[in-house]
This record gives sequence, structure tokens and C-alpha cells, in this order.
Amino acid sequence: MNQVYPSFSDIEEAYQRIKPLINKTPVLTSGMINEIFSADIYFKCENFQKVGAFKFRGATNAVQLLSDTEARKGVTTHSSGNHAAALSLAARQRGIPAYIVMPDNAPEIKKIAVKGYGAKITFCEPTLEAREKTLEKVQNETGATFIHPYNNFNVISGQGTAALELLKEYPFLDIIIAPVGGGGLLSGTAISAKAMNHKIKVYAAEPLNADDAYRSFKQGVIIPSVNPKTIADGLLTSLGSITFQVIREKVDDIFTTKEESIIQAMKLIWERMKIIVEPSSAVPLAIIIENISLFKDKKIGIIISGGNVDLNHLPF
Amino acid sequence: MNQVYPSFSDIEEAYQRIKPLINKTPVLTSGMINEIFSADIYFKCENFQKVGAFKFRGATNAVQLLSDTEARKGVTTHSSGNHAAALSLAARQRGIPAYIVMPDNAPEIKKIAVKGYGAKITFCEPTLEAREKTLEKVQNETGATFIHPYNNFNVISGQGTAALELLKEYPFLDIIIAPVGGGGLLSGTAISAKAMNHKIKVYAAEPLNADDAYRSFKQGVIIPSVNPKTIADGLLTSLGSITFQVIREKVDDIFTTKEESIIQAMKLIWERMKIIVEPSSAVPLAIIIENISLFKDKKIGIIISGGNVDLNHLPF
Repeated sequence: MNQVYPSFSDIEEAYQRIKPLINKTPVLTSGMINEIFSADIYFKCENFQKVGAFKFRGATNAVQLLSDTEARKGVTTHSSGNHAAALSLAARQRGIPAYIVMPDNAPEIKKIAVKGYGAKITFCEPTLEAREKTLEKVQNETGATFIHPYNNFNVISGQGTAALELLKEYPFLDIIIAPVGGGGLLSGTAISAKAMNHKIKVYAAEPLNADDAYRSFKQGVIIPSVNPKTIADGLLTSLGSITFQVIREKVDDIFTTKEESIIQAMKLIWERMKIIVEPSSAVPLAIIIENISLFKDKKIGIIISGGNVDLNHLPF
Repeated sequence: MNQVYPSFSDIEEAYQRIKPLINKTPVLTSGMINEIFSADIYFKCENFQKVGAFKFRGATNAVQLLSDTEARKGVTTHSSGNHAAALSLAARQRGIPAYIVMPDNAPEIKKIAVKGYGAKITFCEPTLEAREKTLEKVQNETGATFIHPYNNFNVISGQGTAALELLKEYPFLDIIIAPVGGGGLLSGTAISAKAMNHKIKVYAAEPLNADDAYRSFKQGVIIPSVNPKTIADGLLTSLGSITFQVIREKVDDIFTTKEESIIQAMKLIWERMKIIVEPSSAVPLAIIIENISLFKDKKIGIIISGGNVDLNHLPF
């Protein structure tokens, strides 16, 4: 029987595979932020990853693992966010086509980014039904391989390499926190972290306004996200069957946080660390803001998921 | 006779002195920006320096060089910008008082920063006369040593350590560019660069709307800046006697740039590199935007001077 989800050695192999193709992102700290929270916080800066987000790790791993026959026909996905850009660039790096299905109301800036990486965009109406139908049509016409944004074995293996890099550099962390949307980053992080340090606590951070992962985790069954409204626009999706299983087995707890705390955390990171992070990336620091005593005196790793934000529409 | 300005060995000694007290800032590159300009650009990120600006290097060197007797009485300066914050923190690190003279119309955010570092602020009217009179009064009352923001031997030595770090890591640069306001950073950069690589070109970047250094350089005499209006608010000051001499002897050329190019360069750095830089830091990239053919195929180092910007008042 096949493994249901990646083991740590899958992640190690993914790392060797994608290492020459990705940026090794820096881990930054801020004396001022550590002082505020009486903790040592290590930020793994995937906002400096190619396409500005961790998603490039998983997409690259999935694209590199295609057979030559599969690869020739290209890859496809539905996404209006970072996964679309990541898959497009990963495909370009292998010299194969990428077909992206995108709702026609996606932000102009995202369309330009994906086109810039040379992908072919097929627009559809912004409904789940239209999206799935359009994707099926594209697959039938092109024979391209569908790379799911998170509920995909090879994508999860790739996402786990961010925590792998962080924990190689800082093996002594007490806690590691990742934001959770579909759960690809969180699953990969949990597999790496628990394999590399069995004492580490793995926490997920989620907006209260999109708390489907929290509720799924507590109730033991996937509860889909219904029209969530949060500034953390990378965390709107529901868990998948694979990511949910990893999360149930390896994540210690999920914390939710208010929108105001997310904005406060984002501003704190911008002002104090001088780096641009998207709202989703600020959710882990937001749960520290709301639970100061729990994190006091701890050594904490945070995965900064990305830095793609519309500079003309900032929340502060 | 004393040296008029620092030699490279003064900068090397400054580096050994301040090294344990400063951040070693990273050098970042962007594949996308290199593609746009067909050049290899290395950004030395002093926005990640303590207090968010290169100014901390010079202030720390000056504070560390005080005798114990001098130090006990503290330091003083007039500044509403990064030098005020830098001197305040440098003084706190040595455990001595800092007295900052600041115009009463200085931005609230700057007042809070300086107070946060434990300095004592004396407000004055926003005129040159009031500033100098107030500074004199503070000096008389406290016996504090005046640390000029740029026309100071030890400050220039400290500022030169940024280029020293950059060129140690990337010795093969063809060109190094620093922004010029009072000329402290530029002088230190030029001394280090010409000593470490006699073939390197040292260029200064200045807003056209505050082009006093350009005119001084071309005419061979210091022409003071009169009411300059530029978004690059760190570059409003005039050259000093010491910095002007270094610039005449060691800088190859000064380029000026329009406000639109500064804003365009700043946005490019924010969007592509995911780092927060202040407008003054974008001026070197702005001169590349305006002189693409001159910089084509070159390996260029840029000193990113700082990242202190009011997030509620962005120019884009």
C-alpha cells in the first residue's frame, strides 16, 4: 500500500531535488519584537522565496517529479493566488507549459504575474462549478497533469522543506508555528518538525473569520470553509483529505485570531523588521499577541509564508 | 598635522570596534531586477541595521571613542531623523545620556522612537538659529559632546564600514553607488571602496530637487542646500567641510534624478525584493532607471541607507 502522506525522507529527497532551483531564504530576528514578547522568535522568510511565497517549493517538487512523457504535456491548476504563480514559474524552469484556470474577477496584479511567467490563463466564472468544469476541459484538451495547490503528496513534500531548512539552522526551537489554509504548508512543517525534534510543539495559526481548520481539528471531521471573510486572503481554502490526516496526527494545537491582531502583527513586522509580508504571514505572530503568557520565554520558529500584497490597498 | 579625513585603516579600526554592537546586514539580490536592467545589482541592506539605518554605525563609533570622562557627560546632537535615533541607542548601549535637540514640528513617530531609546529631547523652533542656540545651551548645561550627523571624523569612519562589509563579500564590483545628503555615508563609502579596489567607480545619487552636492561637486565649492523639497527626506542637508573634501578627491561622479524615478525605484524594491526601504534609499536605483545604458552589464553595489518610513503616508 502506498503511503497516504509524505514521510520525512520524502521531504529530504524533495529538498535535494529542489535545492538548486529555489532560494535559500534567510531566517531573521528582531531584538525589538523579542523584547515586546519576552521570547526569541525566528522568522523563516519565504517572502524572499521565488514568486514571493513558499508555494514555489511544492510546485517545483511536483513539476520536477513528472516523467518526461507527462512533463511534455504540461501542468494545470486552478488558483488565483501564489500557487498559480509558483506553478507557472516551476513549469517555465523545466521548459514545459502551464495552464492556469483563474476566475475572471481575479486581481489584475495576479493575472499579470502569472502571464509574466509565461503561463496560459483560461478564465472562468468565479464559482466552484465553473472552475472545476473549466479545469476538466483544459485537462481533456491538453493532457496536462493537475497539480493540486495543497492536497498533493509531492506538493506537501516540497512545502516541508522550509521547516527543514529552519530547523537545520535552529534545532533548539521549542515551538514552530505555520499559518493554515488548505494545510499544505502546515502538513509539511509538522512532518519535518516532529521528525527532526520529537519535543517540539507544532502549532497552527488561523483567522477566526476562517476557522474551518480549527473546527475540523477539534471535531475530528473536515468542515469546509463557507464564504470566509478575512484579510488573510491566502487562508480561505478548506483542508484536504491528505492534509487533514497529517494535521490530526502531528499538529499539537490550532489557535485562531481576530482580524485586528492580524493587522497589528503585520504592521509590527513591517515597521520593526523592514520586510514586506502578506496578511496570511502575520497570523502566527497574531496568535502570539493574543496569547503572550503561553509563548513567554520560548524559542519560537515562524514560517513567513509570503510577501505578495497590493501596495495600493494596505490595511493600515 | 592631523588627518583631515579618515583613512581606510581608520575605517578598519572602526569596524573592529563596532562589530560586536551592530547588525551584520545581508546583501540581497533580485533576479527580476537584474533582468530588468541587464545588470547584477547587490543591495547592502542597512534598512536591517539597528534603528533601521546605516547611521547607527557612525554614531556607535563616535560614542565608543569617547574617553570615560567625556562619556560620563553624555552626547548631544540636533536631528529629527535617523541620526537622532542612532545616537540615542549608541549612547544607551554605552550606558551614557543622550540629549537630542529636535524641532517641535518633527514627526510624532520620530519623537517616540528617540524617547524609546531613552534619550532626553529638547524641543526648539524649526529654524537654524533656534536649533544652534538650543544645542549650545544643552552643551553648556550638560557638558555633553556634540556628535555632528556627518561632518565628523569618527562618524565618517563608522559609515565606511557598510561598504567595507559589502566589498569583502563582493570584491568584484565595477561600481558602487551611495545616496548623498550631508555626505557622511558617501565619504565613508568612497574611502573604503577606493582602498579595497582601485578600479571601482564610486558614484553618488542625489534628488534633482536637492542637488546641492551635484552643484558643489561640479563647481568646486560648497553650495548650501536652500529649502529643498524632495520625497527623499534623508537627503535634505548640505555637504560639510570634511565630507566635501573626500567627495572631491574620491567620488567619480554625482548623478541627479527626478522624483518620479525615485518613487518608481522605491516601488520596484518593495514589490520585487519584499523589503521596506525609505525614499532616500531608492535614489541609487533611480539613477540606474534614468541611465540604463550606462549601467548595462555592470556589477553594481548599492548601499540601501535605511527603512524608516511612515506606513500611513506612502507615495504610491
